[in-house]
Amino acid sequence: MTDVIDSPIRNGVDTATLFATLNAVKGDPEIAKFQFRARNQWVSGTHNRSTISDFYGAKQEMKHNSAHTFDADHPAVLVGTDNAPTPVEYVLHALAACLTAGLANIAAARKINLTSVESVVEGDIDLLGILGLGRGEVRNGFQGIKVSFKLTGDDPEKLREVVEQSRARSAVYDIVTNGVPVEIATD
Amino acid sequence: MTDVIDSPIRNGVDTATLFATLNAVKGDPEIAKFQFRARNQWVSGTHNRSTISDFYGAKQEMKHNSAHTFDADHPAVLVGTDNAPTPVEYVLHALAACLTAGLANIAAARKINLTSVESVVEGDIDLLGILGLGRGEVRNGFQGIKVSFKLTGDDPEKLREVVEQSRARSAVYDIVTNGVPVEIATD
Repeated sequence: MTDVIDSPIRNGVDTATLFATLNAVKGDPEIAKFQFRARNQWVSGTHNRSTISDFYGAKQEMKHNSAHTFDADHPAVLVGTDNAPTPVEYVLHALAACLTAGLANIAAARKINLTSVESVVEGDIDLLGILGLGRGEVRNGFQGIKVSFKLTGDDPEKLREVVEQSRARSAVYDIVTNGVPVEIATD
Repeated sequence: MTDVIDSPIRNGVDTATLFATLNAVKGDPEIAKFQFRARNQWVSGTHNRSTISDFYGAKQEMKHNSAHTFDADHPAVLVGTDNAPTPVEYVLHALAACLTAGLANIAAARKINLTSVESVVEGDIDLLGILGLGRGEVRNGFQGIKVSFKLTGDDPEKLREVVEQSRARSAVYDIVTNGVPVEIATD
């Protein structure tokens, strides 16, 4: 039996590589400048498809292991063909995914073991906004989002602190709560 | 040969159903209150998976035709296992998908024919923020997003107006540019 006192792998996170990456970025902050991309193509009606494959980061053009395609559509009740989730549901997935990835990293860095992480994300939206029936009083997007986490692992109090730190460092939480300037160009 | 003067189907959008839906909502605004949901489960490290299946709308619990699952992960350069796109890339997909679905609907309602719609969405992010190396000066999320549309169909000037109206009515554009209150609960 091997008694591993301090394995670099915790929660599936290679903490040795994590700390090495942090040190590399400290030494050269240009490494941290990334650009992510999605390419979308209309299929028909509310149905369209994005491809995600390449990005820029660490001072070079990079590619994911494989290209990923994702469809989006509206359900029949919203005059679509329900080939896929709606665009707003992908935002909820992105938020859960970002907070959960952060949880695993932060817990690993703090030597806290996670056993399971589950979350439910609920977004309330009044479609009077997007339907143009809100008389300017109803916004187009979600009025509020609730994320409910259920975690098991080490000390519950420490796990709650990890959730709070993940929130404080989450890219998607920042995007969704604080907004981002968006420029739209039409050729 | 049948000479269809004004088909209710344009751009794959059933405009008769679209206008009937608008009228139904005008008659009973409660129909427009929706809640969308995603359920996420941590897999390992930065890899996790969301399921999107049910939602509330039109005064009842509803389900998509099928449940959809989406993985998210970080690439190797960001200490992940690159099983899937990053959470922030899903936000870019959601934005393109929402604007494109809106385009098709609005063009159809205005009797404008679309032949093709393509877009590229690029989001710039400085990872000093999420890495905690930004000394409070670098945000966690995208610093800016650019959406570039290429449309073909009827009169280009009308197509540009359709893009502008889609922006003005887009749920995801509103979420991403204006922010949404997010509540996080930990069990």
